[in-house]
Amino acid sequence: MRILVIGASGTIGKAVVTALNSDHEVVTANHNSGDFQVNLESKDSIEALFNQAGEFDSIISAAGQAAFGALAEQTDADYQLALNNKLMGQINLAKAGLKHLSAGGSITLTSGILSRYPLPGSASIAMANGALESYVRAAALEIENARLNVVAPAFVKETMEMMGMDSSSGISAEDTAKTYLAAIAGDMHGETLDVTD
Amino acid sequence: MRILVIGASGTIGKAVVTALNSDHEVVTANHNSGDFQVNLESKDSIEALFNQAGEFDSIISAAGQAAFGALAEQTDADYQLALNNKLMGQINLAKAGLKHLSAGGSITLTSGILSRYPLPGSASIAMANGALESYVRAAALEIENARLNVVAPAFVKETMEMMGMDSSSGISAEDTAKTYLAAIAGDMHGETLDVTD
Repeated sequence: MRILVIGASGTIGKAVVTALNSDHEVVTANHNSGDFQVNLESKDSIEALFNQAGEFDSIISAAGQAAFGALAEQTDADYQLALNNKLMGQINLAKAGLKHLSAGGSITLTSGILSRYPLPGSASIAMANGALESYVRAAALEIENARLNVVAPAFVKETMEMMGMDSSSGISAEDTAKTYLAAIAGDMHGETLDVTD
Repeated sequence: MRILVIGASGTIGKAVVTALNSDHEVVTANHNSGDFQVNLESKDSIEALFNQAGEFDSIISAAGQAAFGALAEQTDADYQLALNNKLMGQINLAKAGLKHLSAGGSITLTSGILSRYPLPGSASIAMANGALESYVRAAALEIENARLNVVAPAFVKETMEMMGMDSSSGISAEDTAKTYLAAIAGDMHGETLDVTD
């Protein structure tokens, strides 16, 4: 398959690319690196990406920014980052991607378990994640000849180590990538796929 | 209690006001009518509302716009209406309301079951509803001396009748209002309260 991975330079994205590389043609798109560059907050940039990168059998987004921060200190800009980048960035990727997807192809976005298992400081992230999960469930009802799903990763062990957290309960990026591969290979549509051990 | 009902002119809002009126001092705020007027898409308007209307023991929002429409025909403006009005409008109401709420008071927002039980045409509404439910769950972890919840109404019988739908499975606005009263009277915090028969 020809597969586009957006956010391929992130901890999860790298692991997804590694897991796919031996069996598939992987094309990468990041903000500042990769085969193509894309700014998720710009629909024009997303359109340009697909116009240059061509057609795909699967599209995976492991991209999208949102910021942790104490509820009382979250600014309008923090909310807008979550909404414009992680949420609408990925929705606009999916909308544009559907026009560049082979019949029966799949699009897989990324939310996160904070939508349902929040931590203090995660309000705007949880908001974007919950929005993505409900959007995917609803939009899938109107998408034919393609599948749309969202993977909800837990904290990745590598990220927890980088942040100085106890990573013993973390799931490695390599194991997290398996859920994205399952989303490509399976027949699920409109689902939130939790990442488990 | 002194209770502010925003969106008091809507089908659900009217029923909530009716249910509260005999036992409480109810202050209403709508877009164009009521005791006070408020534009949910404007933080200044929300601040002005609270600066004029004073302090409350409970705040209920049955307000927030988002548009049904076929997925392929949803415009950027449709997504922005859901995000700016139904989602951020209610989040900004909650944020401002917390500063004008008596100790132990409650704020109750409105999402809808389309977050988890979508219909075709509901993608942007489902997105806003899912965002609100995850936001409330996460934000509640950082809110002390107040409770924040969200009611997820099903289709209201009166609305179904107005739209020419079969309303036999609908729940009346009067019955829907009971879930808002439960949210005020109870001790739940961070929860999505489904409206059931």
